[in-house]
Amino acid sequence: MTAACTPGFVVPAEFVALAGRLADAARPVIRKYFRTPVTVDDKADSSPVTIADREAEATMRAIISETFPEHGILGEEHGRHNTDAEWVWVLDPIDGTKAFITGKPSFGTLIALAHRGKPVLGVIDQAILDERWLGGAGHPTTLNGQPARVRDCDALAKAYAYTTGPEFFDADTLPAWNRIAERVKQPRYGCDCYAYALLTSGFVDLVVEAGLKPYDYAALVPVIENAGGTVTDWLGQPLTIASDGRVCAAGDARLHALALEVLAG
Amino acid sequence: MTAACTPGFVVPAEFVALAGRLADAARPVIRKYFRTPVTVDDKADSSPVTIADREAEATMRAIISETFPEHGILGEEHGRHNTDAEWVWVLDPIDGTKAFITGKPSFGTLIALAHRGKPVLGVIDQAILDERWLGGAGHPTTLNGQPARVRDCDALAKAYAYTTGPEFFDADTLPAWNRIAERVKQPRYGCDCYAYALLTSGFVDLVVEAGLKPYDYAALVPVIENAGGTVTDWLGQPLTIASDGRVCAAGDARLHALALEVLAG
Repeated sequence: MTAACTPGFVVPAEFVALAGRLADAARPVIRKYFRTPVTVDDKADSSPVTIADREAEATMRAIISETFPEHGILGEEHGRHNTDAEWVWVLDPIDGTKAFITGKPSFGTLIALAHRGKPVLGVIDQAILDERWLGGAGHPTTLNGQPARVRDCDALAKAYAYTTGPEFFDADTLPAWNRIAERVKQPRYGCDCYAYALLTSGFVDLVVEAGLKPYDYAALVPVIENAGGTVTDWLGQPLTIASDGRVCAAGDARLHALALEVLAG
Repeated sequence: MTAACTPGFVVPAEFVALAGRLADAARPVIRKYFRTPVTVDDKADSSPVTIADREAEATMRAIISETFPEHGILGEEHGRHNTDAEWVWVLDPIDGTKAFITGKPSFGTLIALAHRGKPVLGVIDQAILDERWLGGAGHPTTLNGQPARVRDCDALAKAYAYTTGPEFFDADTLPAWNRIAERVKQPRYGCDCYAYALLTSGFVDLVVEAGLKPYDYAALVPVIENAGGTVTDWLGQPLTIASDGRVCAAGDARLHALALEVLAG
């Protein structure tokens, strides 16, 4: 197998097909529980989790283990399995559980495939709106099978920027977001992974966040990059499973460079 | 005609029917322009407006004038017409234009009917998600024709609270929102009118905002009240066309009282 960093590397079609099957399998679980009075448990980090999160991830894990038992799995709800494997699936069954439990369809199912730690295939799936963004190495990003493409935006003053909410920043990172918010045309809030999906389709120019976990961002990278966008940590380094959770995504590479300068202070 | 403040007052069925027709007429206009590259103009207050806003409002105004020429109209985009009339329609064709132009279906069409300045009938319509909340005096609130009802929540520490974004507050009001955000279970951002719709259906407990215009809140009042909720200004006074734009809505009247105390400082 050619390494993921090699030019011309293409994710095998059977893995792309599996990513689609995983999203297909998560959808009915999520739809079944959406806008029903599910019990909300608070995890150790006080983020909420529901039976919908757990059941959707368990459903996807079972399919992976049955199809490619040698692959590893890193999931938000059910932990690590064989994560030293060459191929590791990174799963967030409901990114945006707070949106989910308040009935707002801006959450998403995130499915990534990492090759030796590098995300090479990603899915952002919105089960309620019936929208699926899928992209990977050798597979230009699509929205429901149609090409998805970022738009040009060469200046912060022209940019529509999103972040999920100010509460995701800490004392170190909030001033940096505030500098971005002051400089862009419109700072906007809410959205979770859906903001990156909108960026991928050319409706949003910039997304800046901090405090993300690998399962929050791994799927975003191939989706954005294979739609022509740029996504890195705040220092401009590629996002890997080991990144610090500070994410800067832009549709236009020029805007991305300008945003990194502002984030650096 | 009995006055709106009289117990037992019922909005005439022909006015309810017209509200539905107005929402029906706005939908195809909004759908036609959603996620297309529309030109965005900045108004005097630097809020954006598009051809979708203008065309949807003009469509609704034409229907009102044809059906009830004696009624007044107050619209966000095309101004005032005969607003001293007994019955005045208050229209916001796209509440959440910033969400609309970034491709995010959390905006809504707001249609209110005010009787001598008091909102007695309201519609929150989401054209993309095909969701319509409608409620008024004598007409318990429905979502797509099915009963909609708020949920109980008797403490801030249990409450899921929304506001559109911190940038809507000023130096006077931001500290008050921050006190709410610190006390609730989850402060959430984004949504525009959609947060009130989610509250109406019992998925959200509290919405606090400032800086709203009459066309931003007039439709919310009958929708929320006729689903069992409470919505007032920050002093607990009924919202009228002349209110100061500070809005506090809660599904549970006990929570509403607690929130007003915190907002008062």
